[in-house]
Amino acid sequence: MKIAVIGAGMLGASTAYHLALAGHQVIVFDEGHPGKATLAGAGIVCPWATKADDESWYALYAAGARYYDQLIADLTARGESQVGYRKVGALVVADDPAEFDAAAERLARRTAAAPETGGFQEISPEQARDHFPPLREDMKALFVPGGARVDARLLSAAMLRAAVAAGAELRSDLATLQLLNGRAILRDGRDQEVAVDQIVVAAGAWASRILAPLGLNHPVVPQRGQIVHLSLPGVDTSRWAVLLPMASHYLLAFDDSRVVIGATRENGTGFDYRVTAAGQHEVLSAGLHFAPGLANATILETRVGFRPAGPSITPILGRVEGIEGLVIGNGLGASGLTIGPLAGKLLASIAVGEDPGFDLTPYTPHPRMT
Amino acid sequence: MKIAVIGAGMLGASTAYHLALAGHQVIVFDEGHPGKATLAGAGIVCPWATKADDESWYALYAAGARYYDQLIADLTARGESQVGYRKVGALVVADDPAEFDAAAERLARRTAAAPETGGFQEISPEQARDHFPPLREDMKALFVPGGARVDARLLSAAMLRAAVAAGAELRSDLATLQLLNGRAILRDGRDQEVAVDQIVVAAGAWASRILAPLGLNHPVVPQRGQIVHLSLPGVDTSRWAVLLPMASHYLLAFDDSRVVIGATRENGTGFDYRVTAAGQHEVLSAGLHFAPGLANATILETRVGFRPAGPSITPILGRVEGIEGLVIGNGLGASGLTIGPLAGKLLASIAVGEDPGFDLTPYTPHPRMT
Amino acid sequence: MKIAVIGAGMLGASTAYHLALAGHQVIVFDEGHPGKATLAGAGIVCPWATKADDESWYALYAAGARYYDQLIADLTARGESQVGYRKVGALVVADDPAEFDAAAERLARRTAAAPETGGFQEISPEQARDHFPPLREDMKALFVPGGARVDARLLSAAMLRAAVAAGAELRSDLATLQLLNGRAILRDGRDQEVAVDQIVVAAGAWASRILAPLGLNHPVVPQRGQIVHLSLPGVDTSRWAVLLPMASHYLLAFDDSRVVIGATRENGTGFDYRVTAAGQHEVLSAGLHFAPGLANATILETRVGFRPAGPSITPILGRVEGIEGLVIGNGLGASGLTIGPLAGKLLASIAVGEDPGFDLTPYTPHPRMT
Amino acid sequence: MKIAVIGAGMLGASTAYHLALAGHQVIVFDEGHPGKATLAGAGIVCPWATKADDESWYALYAAGARYYDQLIADLTARGESQVGYRKVGALVVADDPAEFDAAAERLARRTAAAPETGGFQEISPEQARDHFPPLREDMKALFVPGGARVDARLLSAAMLRAAVAAGAELRSDLATLQLLNGRAILRDGRDQEVAVDQIVVAAGAWASRILAPLGLNHPVVPQRGQIVHLSLPGVDTSRWAVLLPMASHYLLAFDDSRVVIGATRENGTGFDYRVTAAGQHEVLSAGLHFAPGLANATILETRVGFRPAGPSITPILGRVEGIEGLVIGNGLGASGLTIGPLAGKLLASIAVGEDPGFDLTPYTPHPRMT
Repeated sequence: MKIAVIGAGMLGASTAYHLALAGHQVIVFDEGHPGKATLAGAGIVCPWATKADDESWYALYAAGARYYDQLIADLTARGESQVGYRKVGALVVADDPAEFDAAAERLARRTAAAPETGGFQEISPEQARDHFPPLREDMKALFVPGGARVDARLLSAAMLRAAVAAGAELRSDLATLQLLNGRAILRDGRDQEVAVDQIVVAAGAWASRILAPLGLNHPVVPQRGQIVHLSLPGVDTSRWAVLLPMASHYLLAFDDSRVVIGATRENGTGFDYRVTAAGQHEVLSAGLHFAPGLANATILETRVGFRPAGPSITPILGRVEGIEGLVIGNGLGASGLTIGPLAGKLLASIAVGEDPGFDLTPYTPHPRMT
Repeated sequence: MKIAVIGAGMLGASTAYHLALAGHQVIVFDEGHPGKATLAGAGIVCPWATKADDESWYALYAAGARYYDQLIADLTARGESQVGYRKVGALVVADDPAEFDAAAERLARRTAAAPETGGFQEISPEQARDHFPPLREDMKALFVPGGARVDARLLSAAMLRAAVAAGAELRSDLATLQLLNGRAILRDGRDQEVAVDQIVVAAGAWASRILAPLGLNHPVVPQRGQIVHLSLPGVDTSRWAVLLPMASHYLLAFDDSRVVIGATRENGTGFDYRVTAAGQHEVLSAGLHFAPGLANATILETRVGFRPAGPSITPILGRVEGIEGLVIGNGLGASGLTIGPLAGKLLASIAVGEDPGFDLTPYTPHPRMT
Repeated sequence: MKIAVIGAGMLGASTAYHLALAGHQVIVFDEGHPGKATLAGAGIVCPWATKADDESWYALYAAGARYYDQLIADLTARGESQVGYRKVGALVVADDPAEFDAAAERLARRTAAAPETGGFQEISPEQARDHFPPLREDMKALFVPGGARVDARLLSAAMLRAAVAAGAELRSDLATLQLLNGRAILRDGRDQEVAVDQIVVAAGAWASRILAPLGLNHPVVPQRGQIVHLSLPGVDTSRWAVLLPMASHYLLAFDDSRVVIGATRENGTGFDYRVTAAGQHEVLSAGLHFAPGLANATILETRVGFRPAGPSITPILGRVEGIEGLVIGNGLGASGLTIGPLAGKLLASIAVGEDPGFDLTPYTPHPRMT
Repeated sequence: MKIAVIGAGMLGASTAYHLALAGHQVIVFDEGHPGKATLAGAGIVCPWATKADDESWYALYAAGARYYDQLIADLTARGESQVGYRKVGALVVADDPAEFDAAAERLARRTAAAPETGGFQEISPEQARDHFPPLREDMKALFVPGGARVDARLLSAAMLRAAVAAGAELRSDLATLQLLNGRAILRDGRDQEVAVDQIVVAAGAWASRILAPLGLNHPVVPQRGQIVHLSLPGVDTSRWAVLLPMASHYLLAFDDSRVVIGATRENGTGFDYRVTAAGQHEVLSAGLHFAPGLANATILETRVGFRPAGPSITPILGRVEGIEGLVIGNGLGASGLTIGPLAGKLLASIAVGEDPGFDLTPYTPHPRMT
């Protein structure tokens, strides 16, 4: 089957990867927008402590984390050495003892159902600083061995590379959709029609405009995140745990002496691609509050991304009633890096008409308003 | 009247400027795309030597150059000190003597009808190098005193600043159009409707997707240009003439010891935003061929822009039959920086229903296909 | 006379400019170090409110401000259009009423002796926000019309360009000194001797290593400053006053919708060229405290510079006893952009043996320890 | 023993690594100069085809290549995953058949003495393009399986990280030397003396100024190299061979879809840190001549480095007669990335007074001129 995937972020890259490996002919369109969420996203894979409680969302969130082991093993087996993933463990901390206890209760309940977590245990401040040296001195923690971090740039690039090796084509180009006799038609940036059997729109915050010519009012808008990247030259940060204060912000480290503090959650910004004074101040304040040992770290850059935020926390995955040849995946919001790889696998199944092995009813897109 | 302008390149900035100064309420949407032609464009304002010969196009091209004097005077009078424009004169040169003579013939004919050119004269290689020191030693030239250069970034920023000072609002946001009862409706990146009386689409190479939801098949595609910026530290280049070899490439200087070599003209690239090995090599080869004195200049950057290329050289300016509240300007191609400021003034007149004082019949957009 | 100037920051550029205009043969060496104070420095020219009280320092500080009018007039007369200077007025504010009153007392005393200040007056919070719109709402101010701001990059580049136009040579190269028969000898980065009559070392924080081979223990060390640059797109900031809270930090605006918050004063960092988490946080906290209206401004960049800090606040300007052919200027610290242009003029006079017209005894460098 | 290493390029990083692993107390000073050769260098490890024929130089060149296997194994065993090295094989090609045959003769002679090469074989143009797809279609090649490429940034960072893990201290700071009673004394950028037993100067092109205060006229000057980095998005280049045309330029690939064309060899530039129009043109012309398949590759960046060029091709490694506590390594020129790791090991041995196991007599620095 010949399938176009619009968007090469985590979701689109995973869709293309799974399709290409299954032997389909894949063509990926990506516009290279500044503000792509995947390129900005600091990936923590640790769904089990979250306060949010929506059931159909959590089902995907937990399954997304579980799927990582298989995906990484498959990519490694295909010769990919740069997948950007490591299971370093997660530290859950909280300023407020009641928050801490509530997180422990959630972890107890959820890790029991998820053997890949390795359970969890309460550890002392000293032990916590062994896992994350710049941590504030008074903070005990809950340690989850199965928590991981992912560099979304590397992982999505690895999936795309594997897709290309399996025959997929990448195009840095704009794609425009049209509706013709009830079917979605695709034109490229040269205004040429591209004949495909199916079109998967995985364009995140930009999808609404891509879908507008089809008469769809796609309810996903951008939520801006500003994420600060620090460096600790000469320090081996490759085994540091991710740090999840039970608050809006979080910290994690990468192999190259890099520590990341994320992130603002700004609604109503539209596509205003900017690092702001207040945003940078907010992120640094939070980071230095929990990890004062980062005071002398180098600021490398601040990344800005637009998370695709739907009307609720529930993702959108599926076909649109009344339009042939169209599959949509979107609305993963702040959990996109955890859910994205699995969701791409599901979209691939939908596109080629196979059973995804997962009840996707709760995620069905709204039908076309006529 | 309340008017939205989509696109803040040279054309949109000029439209917003003229509307705001005329007292209208203006809101400008710009997505900050990488590859905006205005931000990449090296502006030579010297239409009189061109080989191209389309009549309705040349009428706008020559009128666009003539309008610059008034525009710059108006901006300066409003306190703008950074307009990025200077009438440094143009040197027309050619490798082939027959090309040189043909250029002289065109200049004789056209400068006679354009007193702002100051006429032209043939000068010796030594005199030519006074105007452009790195020029090859054997090149005599035709000098046109009225030739000018413009830094499109500065000029469009100045027009926007003046528009904002007159009450316009700038939004770094995506705009989506919809058709409702025969009228164009605008939604912003938050998916909110923005109520306006008129919408001017001046979005260049990106317009076709913006217009697609209206059922328009807008025939403008990107033509990629790669432009090399060099620096000659400590050298005062502020009075250097622009250099027009009668070939595809050209050179010009800016005040800050900067020399620019332009540009590739690549069709069929779509929105593939990249500096390529062959493109950079082509531009440097051409530049060093005509100006070997630049061998030791510093390479500062290579800019990439997508010129909006229509089906013919004739620009598109006007209303679309069958859609209320919509004005389109596009297709200025490689002459956008010369024509843009005037064309924005014309679009402003059309939008508010005033007589533009210029016969715009040849530039009317195609009607909606139904 | 043939004179080498080592260092092309504000001080070296001014020295070269004054020497070249006086008809001397000048060769400027500059290594292009990251961290050059001039390139990072946000220039406020408003010495009159300062708390510091050293007499010989203040004499130069005040004279440096006074000299600006003449320098700018001369450069403008030579055709320089980009001098980066504007007399926008200064707002002095303070959190503490006692600090405010003390500042008023100092201004009263000092502006009386400095007619170029235009005096000063107390203004209301509303009036203050007319001069600096993002200012906190409750802050009355002391307004000094003669306060100015300078973009040190543009001014030093303009002086260098004027020097080159007058025959000076710029070399991006390293210079090494040696002592031969009691005289300083210069070698370039190709290890070739460069024969000159006089050598002016204006190398700021890097001077101690340049002077070490002469047996000099030059007591100037780097003091790191981190300076945040913000942008307010579309806002005309060109007339905004500079803001001097009577604290360590300050704010000013440039023509291109840019607002600057300066700066950390970090001793003991050595040449550790980095933007740090704590430094950025400190500067943003101070800036948003005094100017909360900047919350939504774009962060453009953070510049890092190493101010040359001597053992006391008193600058070092003059010849070193016991070494022929050597002139040193250094130690201007945080007042370098105010004092630098004048100090360069003084160094030029010393180098060619003319009367500087200023008693330079207090600034004499220490003799060589033998 | 306590040892300072000045310079953290390939040579200094290796010295620090070997010293720290041997249990010594190490402090590394690095100024972060723009133009550090290691950061610009594209590393081909394939000494066996070289035309140069100096015996003592070739001994180190070949031994340097042989040492890589052990170094990489040791780093990997210490947990370093990012060493930037891969034995991808080398393709030797030539425009001139006589050059090709001469290269075959050299390879026959030298690979016989170097089992780590895996010998070599002549292969057809088709086979050659399997190893390096963008190669010109008519080029047969000599393939050396043991040829490798190294990303000097990653390898030097890995050695430094391992050194820090073993207790070394890294300082981004300037170091100044002085001579006191026949002994080299070190001061940092805060002008504080740093007490050490030995000082290893591995500062490459910058060493002459560091050594000048000791009365040494160190004969190493910078040779500028400009190196172009291209990208082939989506293409897996991780197994591409290095390409050695028997000419001044060469090509190699890295894991991240990156292809590098190197490099100019510019003498007499001093420390003029710039990408030039002619340099970029030269490198692209050579690259597209041998590898026309790169025409559509993206230009990512051009790196500039100053190779440390001594009076002859022979490196400088050893103690300076007449100065206590000083070891110098320098002059590795264009072969620095091959020789550097081994040379650092040798410097470490010299510094602590152990037998380097290699006759270093030919590399002894000149004594102090008095």
